[in-house]
Formats: sequence, structure tokens, C-alpha cells
Amino acid sequence: MQRAIRVGLIGFGTIGTGVVKLLKRNREQIRDRVGVPVDLVRIADIDTKRDRGVRLAKGVLVGDARKVLDDPSIDIVIELMGGTGLARRFMLEAFKAKKDVVTANKALLAHHGDEIFAQAEKSLVEIGYEASVGGGIPIIRTLREALGGDRHQAVFGIVNGTTNYILSRMSQEGGDFQTVLAEAQADGLAEADPSFDVDGVDAAHKLTLLIQLAFGRKIGFDDVSTEGIRKITQDDIAFAAEFGFVLKHLAVAVRHGDRIEARVHPAMVPRDHALGGINGALNAIVLQSEALESSMYVGLGAGMMPTATAVVGDLMEIARNRLHGCRGRVAPLGFPVASLVKAKPIAAADAEGTYYLRMQVADKPGALSHITGAMGRAGVSIASMVQRGQKRRGSATVVFRTHRANHRALNKAVTAIDKLATVRGKSVVLRIEESLSG
Amino acid sequence: MQRAIRVGLIGFGTIGTGVVKLLKRNREQIRDRVGVPVDLVRIADIDTKRDRGVRLAKGVLVGDARKVLDDPSIDIVIELMGGTGLARRFMLEAFKAKKDVVTANKALLAHHGDEIFAQAEKSLVEIGYEASVGGGIPIIRTLREALGGDRHQAVFGIVNGTTNYILSRMSQEGGDFQTVLAEAQADGLAEADPSFDVDGVDAAHKLTLLIQLAFGRKIGFDDVSTEGIRKITQDDIAFAAEFGFVLKHLAVAVRHGDRIEARVHPAMVPRDHALGGINGALNAIVLQSEALESSMYVGLGAGMMPTATAVVGDLMEIARNRLHGCRGRVAPLGFPVASLVKAKPIAAADAEGTYYLRMQVADKPGALSHITGAMGRAGVSIASMVQRGQKRRGSATVVFRTHRANHRALNKAVTAIDKLATVRGKSVVLRIEESLSG
Repeated sequence: MQRAIRVGLIGFGTIGTGVVKLLKRNREQIRDRVGVPVDLVRIADIDTKRDRGVRLAKGVLVGDARKVLDDPSIDIVIELMGGTGLARRFMLEAFKAKKDVVTANKALLAHHGDEIFAQAEKSLVEIGYEASVGGGIPIIRTLREALGGDRHQAVFGIVNGTTNYILSRMSQEGGDFQTVLAEAQADGLAEADPSFDVDGVDAAHKLTLLIQLAFGRKIGFDDVSTEGIRKITQDDIAFAAEFGFVLKHLAVAVRHGDRIEARVHPAMVPRDHALGGINGALNAIVLQSEALESSMYVGLGAGMMPTATAVVGDLMEIARNRLHGCRGRVAPLGFPVASLVKAKPIAAADAEGTYYLRMQVADKPGALSHITGAMGRAGVSIASMVQRGQKRRGSATVVFRTHRANHRALNKAVTAIDKLATVRGKSVVLRIEESLSG
Repeated sequence: MQRAIRVGLIGFGTIGTGVVKLLKRNREQIRDRVGVPVDLVRIADIDTKRDRGVRLAKGVLVGDARKVLDDPSIDIVIELMGGTGLARRFMLEAFKAKKDVVTANKALLAHHGDEIFAQAEKSLVEIGYEASVGGGIPIIRTLREALGGDRHQAVFGIVNGTTNYILSRMSQEGGDFQTVLAEAQADGLAEADPSFDVDGVDAAHKLTLLIQLAFGRKIGFDDVSTEGIRKITQDDIAFAAEFGFVLKHLAVAVRHGDRIEARVHPAMVPRDHALGGINGALNAIVLQSEALESSMYVGLGAGMMPTATAVVGDLMEIARNRLHGCRGRVAPLGFPVASLVKAKPIAAADAEGTYYLRMQVADKPGALSHITGAMGRAGVSIASMVQRGQKRRGSATVVFRTHRANHRALNKAVTAIDKLATVRGKSVVLRIEESLSG
């Protein structure tokens, strides 16, 4: 039997540092569970100088990723460099050399998952990517293995910790989006360039992966209708509270026969919904399944140690499969990539829902009747209306809640409303999410 | 490669029927994921006549379990007969014949887990028992594999659907324990003999298993301090609500160095705690871990189809391991049974907490001072007191909330209080669970 599993790491950032710490701290436990030691023998990073607060043996940290990829003694490569260019090439190269890969790279898997999963299957090697969705929450493993005998109708939830942290903090402590974002950046809870998170791109990457795992169906990344949280104001938060809702940034995928509805956007969620209480950097993913019905998985979706847990869990699984000679025991998606069916997305415009509209209306006679008229002509029925004083000179904030409406009709109404001389700026539209049972 | 995996089922009750349905309904999907068909070829049950609403091929249903155990063509045995006598013998026999076993039998594993897990390891066969805790919630798999690189400090939650259903319904619709229990029995949500559930035995079985998986440590089943919900009244529910709490039946295990605190009891949980919103037949299990920190797993903890999901998930995993020749890839507990450390339990009396006491006090001068005096002498400090009118002739319901107190001191106080001439009947003591962060 092999004496140890030899691991190489490419990309020595926050999560990489967490992996080094966890492998060191729980070395005995990991050996006991796997059967042999799991040794991190080489780490490649452009920056070989920075002090990351962990002690490494001499010669472990190198500046060149080739020293990981070209070393035939290395069994498993952990890819934590990010990006979709070099990371893709390195990964495919590792597979060809019969090395297994563990990654947290959701962007790469959302854009090139097909190619990567197919190559892993073909090479009979393993790819572990639990860390790519929900940090340490074992949602990939749950979909790939535990619930493999069930069929899922919906997968949705809060999958981006940064946006959830910002919205939670805006709700609990006030402050506008820009201020809270700047504070989150100062605290290391948002990236210097926050656009992937706050514009919903990261959540859409994760949703693309979850759709494949949950439904065995694939839609293009561009087919996910994606909206971020930059437009959310304290007005929206206050109105939401008044109606019994909280604002959450959701990723939602629902299967309608052969078609998939996939969307990422801020939404109003009932305060007593299971997702309503998920605050701060927490993530939560809900599955709706035929046999299991509703189930939910909650935990920290990012951060050094939580994410490292998922990387090490994958390492241990792959190490065991190597030792027992059963790599490829489970296909990367839980089923052969060849079985993945291309599905037609449901265009965002064809979706239905109830909506919240906020607009700034001039305090003039007839202003409201023009707005309600535009909604009526588009076929959007109004459930309730609230008008807030005259905070800004000569205008009032008005919000509407609609009855169930077609999104196309709603867009038509909003386009007409935003052209009215009595309406200032652009209306803000938020979906009210009442039909997703938690 | 093998043409099909052949499965035999012993015990054709509710869950067994669900397994038959699920294997039939998702046959193609399961074949695609496993690689070969998973065929249920024989079912043994004492009752071969009852119509369970599923069609079986001729000869599949037999009255004698030996026709499953003695058939060398059967690869995997599903044990759903329950009990700790015959089920234990059958299981050990199956292992010796190199058959793998899938079971939902927590009572058997809580009492004889050591022997069974050791025998499975020794025989190099697999035992799947995901269905034994939390129905279809993949908590066993999560502890055994996904989080195998982390260390856990606490595992707690709501692990019995019947008690949670009764308490939720008492809270939401009123009614006393006996009435709601009778209704739950009529609806098939409680057993004809409900004592295993309502007295906390079932939850204690599950907790015993979770402790081994989470801590790698073992305490005896009798070391779990176990209390049921029979004593809960509408008074308790109303007082809880007044203080901002809800009543939940909890199973709690906390690791203190080498010692384990393990208890099952009704408790007051803050309304906005993650467990406060878990109602009806739902289960929820929270883990507190060093690296991952807090994570939570929620879903239906019982019922035909949810539990069948877990059985079929285990079947699929074992089928794959058979096909790839890697049975024994993961030890039954995730680590070798030989590494399981016997741990000293912390006696319930040595635990600390804050408590709620309810008593019926005669409306006589000095009555309260006798009670508060008894508490003071025992060293229990009072945080607040509420007295409710004179509903019953000449007496009032009085409840106290204590500050943090030693359980031994509290028992001393209660013993003294219950001896007072002005106190009628026995005081009811409930733990207030404020320190377990969700």
C-alpha cells in the first residue's frame, strides 16, 4: 500500500493558507481516517515572500507552477489560483498526467465545466469541487451522491456571502449601499473589485453548477438572468419591513418539464421564511425534491477556514479512492457527462411573479392616475400602494405591490411609467418571492 | 463487469414500501448514476398478504427472511424489520456472507453499534445507515466524509419528528398533550405506542450515534440524560411565548475536552434562534466545528419517501463500491472502530444552565417567601418571577427564571420547594437554552 498521498497546491492565497493550517492541525485525524498521511509537499505562488502566518519546510514554497504539474510524485493538485485561462490549461494538463484535482473555481466550472468534467471522466481521475459552492456546506456531495436516487424540482437560496452581508448590515444598521460596501471592503469581507459579487456574477456561476447537479440539465451561463444589489436603498428596506418582508439576494432555479427557469436577483422574502433569518456571511441552499420534499443546508459560504474544510474533505475522499484503486467511482456530476441534457432556458421576460415597484413621483394632480393607467393598459394588476410624504422637494416616493403578473407585461408598464413627465428617474423593480416554500 | 446489483429487503413496512416505490420510479436515473441496474429481487415480511399499493413480480414477496439471507446471489440486504434481537443476528450473518447491509435501525446501532461496525470492518463489507438519523437529511454522510477533516465541539438539534410535531401543534393550535398526541396517532404521525418518541428514547438513540460520528468518542446509551415531553402544558407554552421563547424537544451533545455532555429534553429556545422556526415534522441538526464554525441541516426526519431517499442513497453508494471493488473505502464511522475512544460522560447533575420552574402555589401569606428562600439556600439565583391570577381555587401558577445555576443545586431547591405545604403537586423544570448559537 502507498506510504502517503502527495499533494501540490497552486495558489497560496487566503483559502490556500487555510488548507495548509487545517492539514497541519488535524494531521493525525486525517491519517487515521484516510489510512495514510496526506502530505502537502509543494506550494506554487507568484508571491513567495509574503508572510502568511504558517511555517513551511524549506523548499516547499516555489514560484513556478510547473514544479507542481511536472512532478510525477505528486498525486493530487489543489487549484486555488482562480481565473479561467491558465487554471483551465493547468487542470487539463494535470488530468492527462493522471493527477486528480481539487478546486474552488466556480467561474471556471460554470464556463468550461463540460470540457473539464468530460476530460476527468475520460482520464479516470477525480475532480473535487465542493469548495466552489457554499464554502464548507456539503451541497455538491449531497446532490452528487446522497440524494442521487431522488429527483429535484427546484434549487434556490443565498449563495453569495458578500451580498448577504451587505444587505443584512443595511437592514440591521442602516447606511447606503456604497458606505456599507466600503466598510465591508475595509473588513476584508468584500473584494477590492466587488463587481463579481455585488452584480450577481458569482451567484450565477454557482447556480449554473447547481442546475447541472440537481437537474442533470445544462443551460448556458448567459441564460441565467442576473441582477445585483447596487440599486437597493434604505427606502426599499423600510418598505419591505413594512410589508413583512426582508431583502435577500437570491439565486433561483426551477425545473418546468424540460425547461429551466434560472435567475439571480434581489428579492423580498417573507420575514418568517426559512431564508429570511439567514444573515451576515451565511449561505443557505434549499432543495425541493420529489421524495425528500424540502431540505435546507446552512453555513458560512466563504472565508479561510470554512472553505478549507471543503477542500480537505475532497482531498480525503480522493486520497481514499486512490488507495482503494477506485478513482472514477462517482462521475464528476454524479452521472456521466454524456447524460447531461441541454435544456431550454425560460427567458426572464416569460417568468411570472408578484413585484414591488418604487418610483419618485412629482406632487402634481393626476400623477398617480397616469401611473395606474399605464399599469392597467399593460395588464398589471395592483395589489396595494403606499405613498411616503414629500421628502424630496415637490415629489413623493410611491411603491406598488402587484398581483401575479407576467414579467414582460411588467416591463411594458415600467417603460411607460418611466417616460411619464411626472415620474423622476427610473423605477426600481424587485421581485416578491412568495411561492418558494422553505 | 457485473450485470446488476441484487438487493433483498427484510421488513416490508412503511419505509420498505417507499424504497420499492423509489427504486421503481427512478430506475433509469439510478442505473445511469450507478452504472448497472439496482434490482430488488426479494422482499421478506411476516405479512405477505397486505396490499401496500405497489406491484411486485411473482415470487418476490416471501414470508421467510432466510430466503434473503441464504441466497448467495443477493449482494445487499436492506434491514427494515427493526428491533435489536433478530435484526442484530441477521445483520452479523449477512456480513459473514459478504453481503452489505443498509439499515434505518438506530436502536440497534445505539446499543450494539460497536459490535456491528467492528464486524463490518473485519468482513470488509459496507453498512449504510443514513436513514437512522434525520430521515433523508444527509447528516451521517456529512459527518463521516464531508467534514472528516474538521473537528466538532457540539452537535445538537431536533431529531424526533413526532415530538416536534406535537409541540408545534400545541403551540400553534392549543390543546393539551394527550389530545394532540391522540390526533397525531389518528393521522399516522405518532405510533400506537408512542413512548419511544415522546419519552425521548428515540432521540437519545440518535444522539448516541451522532456523538460517535462527530467526536470519535463513545458514551453508553444510559449516559444520555433523557427526558420526554409528557409534562409540557399550555401554561409552559404561554409563559415561553411571553419570555420570547418557543418550546422544542432537543438532543444536545457538547464536547468538553475528553468529556461529553449529552442530554435529551424539552427546552425553551429563543424564538429567533435557527431552531426556533423548525416546526411540524421537520428535523434540524446543528454542528459547531472548529474550521467550518456553525452549520445546519434541515429536512423531514421521518416518513415513507424522505426516509426511502436515504436508504436508496446508501444502496447506490454501496453498489458503486461493489462495482469498483472498493468496499470498505470508508470505515462505518469514518475512522477505524479501534480508534473510538471511550469517554466519560458529564452527569446531568453536573451540568449548568439557566432554568424555568413552574409550580402551583397556595394563595397564602408568606408562600412566595418560602419558595424564594429555598432557592436562595440552594444557591440558585432568581432572574425573574411571574405570577398568574388565581385560575384554580385558592392557588396561582408561579414561574421563575433562574440565572445560570448548577443542576445539582437546582434539584436541591426543587426538592425543598416540592415539600412545602403551600406548593401543590410537583414543580416542572425546563432548561432555557440560550448558549447554543445556531
